[in-house]
Amino acid sequence: MPGPGAVPGAVPGEGRGLPSPELLAQARLLVAPGLSASLVRELERIAGRDAEPSADGVTAGGPLLCVGAVLPDGLPTGRLLWFHSVNAGTDPLLAAGPWPAGALLTRTVGRMGERIAQYVLGWVLAECQAVPEYVAQHARAEWRRLPTELVAGQTALVYGTGRIGGAVAALLRGCGVRTVGVGRTVRTGAPPAGFDRVIGAEEDPEAEAEELAGARWVIAALPSTGATEGFFGAGRFAAVRGATFVNVGRGATVDPVALEGALRGGGVRRAVLDVLPEEPAAPGDPVWRLPRTVITSHSAGITADEDVAQDFAACWEAVASGRRPELAVDVGRGY
Amino acid sequence: MPGPGAVPGAVPGEGRGLPSPELLAQARLLVAPGLSASLVRELERIAGRDAEPSADGVTAGGPLLCVGAVLPDGLPTGRLLWFHSVNAGTDPLLAAGPWPAGALLTRTVGRMGERIAQYVLGWVLAECQAVPEYVAQHARAEWRRLPTELVAGQTALVYGTGRIGGAVAALLRGCGVRTVGVGRTVRTGAPPAGFDRVIGAEEDPEAEAEELAGARWVIAALPSTGATEGFFGAGRFAAVRGATFVNVGRGATVDPVALEGALRGGGVRRAVLDVLPEEPAAPGDPVWRLPRTVITSHSAGITADEDVAQDFAACWEAVASGRRPELAVDVGRGY
Repeated sequence: MPGPGAVPGAVPGEGRGLPSPELLAQARLLVAPGLSASLVRELERIAGRDAEPSADGVTAGGPLLCVGAVLPDGLPTGRLLWFHSVNAGTDPLLAAGPWPAGALLTRTVGRMGERIAQYVLGWVLAECQAVPEYVAQHARAEWRRLPTELVAGQTALVYGTGRIGGAVAALLRGCGVRTVGVGRTVRTGAPPAGFDRVIGAEEDPEAEAEELAGARWVIAALPSTGATEGFFGAGRFAAVRGATFVNVGRGATVDPVALEGALRGGGVRRAVLDVLPEEPAAPGDPVWRLPRTVITSHSAGITADEDVAQDFAACWEAVASGRRPELAVDVGRGY
Repeated sequence: MPGPGAVPGAVPGEGRGLPSPELLAQARLLVAPGLSASLVRELERIAGRDAEPSADGVTAGGPLLCVGAVLPDGLPTGRLLWFHSVNAGTDPLLAAGPWPAGALLTRTVGRMGERIAQYVLGWVLAECQAVPEYVAQHARAEWRRLPTELVAGQTALVYGTGRIGGAVAALLRGCGVRTVGVGRTVRTGAPPAGFDRVIGAEEDPEAEAEELAGARWVIAALPSTGATEGFFGAGRFAAVRGATFVNVGRGATVDPVALEGALRGGGVRRAVLDVLPEEPAAPGDPVWRLPRTVITSHSAGITADEDVAQDFAACWEAVASGRRPELAVDVGRGY
């Protein structure tokens, strides 16, 4: 039975807030004002109806289907049937307040795993090949062989063993890196593709500490949930012996004071931070003065228009035939 | 029958200059003065005899086995049985004059294919991820998302379809790049592993020009021989439409004037040059002022001591059992 507040007509037993095909057929399509005209045309084509800008306010009745990054101001959430996020990370949406009961939330992943994996491998190999150092040396017209590293045979710890962590691990492994996945808890069965070994941080903290000590790379790809806040704190960083730390997950998973201490103490060799606890960082933010660190302005996992259209179409097809979309977000877990 | 000038006792019919196990047993081991003490100890262990510095001159008789980078001054080449090069590129050795008749030449390849492949992928992904630009932007404490590229789906032309070209192609392909190998002539049979397609530049120049026009990356991994000098000249560069040019082969394979023209005209987007026609480049060399270019001081395919020891051991085992080593150089072809 649908819970209290659910939209009448939602299909029970098929997961939280799956709208019935009948309601979907009546829904009005609201799109965020920032979407490109060509993307809006694509969404209209997929949904078979005209779009309305969600900023204009909604007076007329009927169920609503929204596409955007955040819940529009003044949205009558009781009539929200389905929200499709143009981003993969839905924590800003869920942090804004309790999610409207009975409303389906889906997200855009697109080629995010692939994009983030290429970002990680790019920064890893750029460090091994001394790319910034060679660029600087070239500017001085200086011929000198700089130390470089073969990444093959090194160990990378990848925190997060889902689609994104798995994609990161698979690319690193293709270059001969030994990949160790770390999840909060171990999933049963064989390690996901791309990992040589998988550890549960809660079940086997000793194995994790040992692997941290031997790692050349620590890659954070954790979502932001209550359980991951400050996950990379003084305890974990104390176990690191010279690894470079790369964060492609969420800024809130890192304790910035602990990271700074590990960088200054030398336990963490370098840091590449795509994400920060507060974004964007203002020019005066002390985060810019962390030693041996590069910040990349939350660019690793951007979604392109084609990603949004493709993932919305896949969700649409599932919902229209009464199935729960693979890209539906479990609003309790947060991803 | 051994040719005139061959060391008496060389095994006929097994390739040029393969010494007999009997002569090898009598040979004196000469090592270049620049080799590290630990490498020399390894070479002594493999050869089962003491080493002598090749710089001291050679008065006593008997056949000679040399390990180094260049033929020592004053070496009695008529007694040279075998020279093992600590480098993969043997063109400086062969350019110094006619190779001593009957002397075997072997080389060190080591993990060179893997090293060069990681160099290429590192510079390719660093450009896609805007690594130098993010480093510069970070120094200005500026938060701004820069354009990045997903390398998947792009095309790379790799000139050289042997071990090194193949290793480069395999790593690129692992990131979803379409890889086209270009050899001077097509080898028969299926394309070597790592390539989606292989073209013979002499047999099918139209296919090559089409692929050059569609390529995002042109990777040069050609050895230096008479036939490859100035191979990348005005004709080839005229066909390029916005590709980045990476040279990990030899500097002499590129016509520097043609490359400069293509960079200034925009046909070539960027250049990453590990090798130059004249090395090292002096601070006043105009090559430092090529637009959008980085020079990396011939660092891509360095061989480590462990590579030299390992490859010398493999050659030793082959020669001692009367087989031609896989790392023997065809002194006529030049590689």
